[in-house]
Amino acid sequence: MSELVKVVVDAMGGDYAPEVPVKGAVDALNERKEIFVYLAGRKEMVEKELAKYEYPKDRLEIVEASEVIETAEPPVAAIRSKKDSSIVVGQTLLRKQQADAFVSSGSTGAVLVGGQVIVGRIKGVERAPLAPLIPTAKGASLLIDCGANVDARPSHLVQFAKMGSVYMENIAGVKRPKVAIVNIGAEEEKGNALVKETFPLLKECKDIQFIGSIEARDIPAGDADVIVCEAFVGNVILKLYEGVGATLISQIKKSMMSNMRSKLGAALVKPALKETLKTFDISAHGGAPLLGLKGLVVKTHGSASAEQIKNALFQCEQFKRQDVTGKIREHIVV
Amino acid sequence: MSELVKVVVDAMGGDYAPEVPVKGAVDALNERKEIFVYLAGRKEMVEKELAKYEYPKDRLEIVEASEVIETAEPPVAAIRSKKDSSIVVGQTLLRKQQADAFVSSGSTGAVLVGGQVIVGRIKGVERAPLAPLIPTAKGASLLIDCGANVDARPSHLVQFAKMGSVYMENIAGVKRPKVAIVNIGAEEEKGNALVKETFPLLKECKDIQFIGSIEARDIPAGDADVIVCEAFVGNVILKLYEGVGATLISQIKKSMMSNMRSKLGAALVKPALKETLKTFDISAHGGAPLLGLKGLVVKTHGSASAEQIKNALFQCEQFKRQDVTGKIREHIVV
Repeated sequence: MSELVKVVVDAMGGDYAPEVPVKGAVDALNERKEIFVYLAGRKEMVEKELAKYEYPKDRLEIVEASEVIETAEPPVAAIRSKKDSSIVVGQTLLRKQQADAFVSSGSTGAVLVGGQVIVGRIKGVERAPLAPLIPTAKGASLLIDCGANVDARPSHLVQFAKMGSVYMENIAGVKRPKVAIVNIGAEEEKGNALVKETFPLLKECKDIQFIGSIEARDIPAGDADVIVCEAFVGNVILKLYEGVGATLISQIKKSMMSNMRSKLGAALVKPALKETLKTFDISAHGGAPLLGLKGLVVKTHGSASAEQIKNALFQCEQFKRQDVTGKIREHIVV
Repeated sequence: MSELVKVVVDAMGGDYAPEVPVKGAVDALNERKEIFVYLAGRKEMVEKELAKYEYPKDRLEIVEASEVIETAEPPVAAIRSKKDSSIVVGQTLLRKQQADAFVSSGSTGAVLVGGQVIVGRIKGVERAPLAPLIPTAKGASLLIDCGANVDARPSHLVQFAKMGSVYMENIAGVKRPKVAIVNIGAEEEKGNALVKETFPLLKECKDIQFIGSIEARDIPAGDADVIVCEAFVGNVILKLYEGVGATLISQIKKSMMSNMRSKLGAALVKPALKETLKTFDISAHGGAPLLGLKGLVVKTHGSASAEQIKNALFQCEQFKRQDVTGKIREHIVV
């Protein structure tokens, strides 16, 4: 048996904590023998949840954390003041190298800030981007960066391209991932100042397969595996993806319920439709890694299911086994 | 009878020129008595199209333009070199005040460049934004700016907010339009440098109803009437709207055809579904005005139908009747 991969799960984070994160962790332990879980949270609450399940007790440990950071709290202040929160306690285990990864459905802002100030960046990494997978017609693409640090410099975007490429190759199993930069036209001379400066730098990178610009219109088709952009634009893309999808689906449902004929039809198409909509649901595509840190931090959706949290744990295991951190270190030459 | 509104229609622009623009113009003339049309294009081709229809001959004039600017041509060079193109000839009529408005389904880049250098901006207007209507659950919102000039300054965004507000009030009939700025969070302290600088300026504007930040996720719900952003972000929003919609719809159609049961259901829901998808089609929401110019320039989609071009002509008529240019001038204090 190879070495255990140690994952801290934020038992207090997310809309359905502690039930859902605890169940996700237990399910992961029962399915994979090489995962060890630290559950960070209020001991009493966590124990009550754990009492519901059978699981390998030698591979789970509760780490007491008496405070909870709420979603609405200003992240920097929360990380500073709530030293005994599940996020701070959990990420501190990463910093001390007692654990390999941290998974949380809690406050995105606090998880990001904590990642930077508690876990810390790999030497040479200028910024740690948040990189969710977004659904496309061909599967999923990595959208990098959707984090909280906006107004990036060209050197940041170049690092995002390299880190994203390493991630997609090692975690999603994509050979020589196609990397594109978000732009407002396909031609090299198009773009804002940031894109124009970054474009030639990406062309020079020998360790990535740069395919040029991608217009937002073409993102859902899935022609690029790694989609590089500055965090403000990344946030707009990620959230509009959710928004257009949700509104369109609700309008379609409404139209199907508009008369008897349609209602009958809706009942017939429902099973097939449901399957399709599921593949186009952003939250279904696992957790978003915060790349370039000394340990892996994964942010799962606030409403993530136990299955999604379980999958995030598997993602952490693979991240460790493939030594993604080591590979990122190799590509980021200081 | 009040004064005629004179609209130049680019007879050579778009995927189906000259058939479609000519038909759109003729239909507009037959429906409204107070429109006069100049058809700019190759006389022989335009005459051949016109021969198919009945229309009031005293309200239509062909303006010879021997050249055509293709979509792929670099816009600045094309506007400079093709002096006898339908776009240059048509926009020159605006500059000379021989016409009130110009409608084209041709090269977006060339229409935008021509608007700036040929038609010219209203005194005090720093930038002329392209402002398409995008479909929402409540109807449509104006997305301003989606043009070609990126890296805007805060003063530009403030002018966009004012011009967009005047447009929605006078053309879409929205009383006190709600204006929001695209941001990555709802709180005032969030955003990139541009948004942070612009936010307090918008709050100070007494002539608009500023409601604060809007996250991309909430745009499709239709809570803001005027959505202000810098052109790079506007382009991403506009094109992702199209892209996500198109991909999702094609996946839904595919899923409905996946088995016999679904196929039967699909036949039943089709009419209602078609209606819904139509309201969510960006190209169905008329032409996008280029605001802040001395005359109105409207860019219709390259694949615009005759009906859409007809509607763009009606839009021009209302723009003139409501004296939108005069109202913009009042709000942009130099």
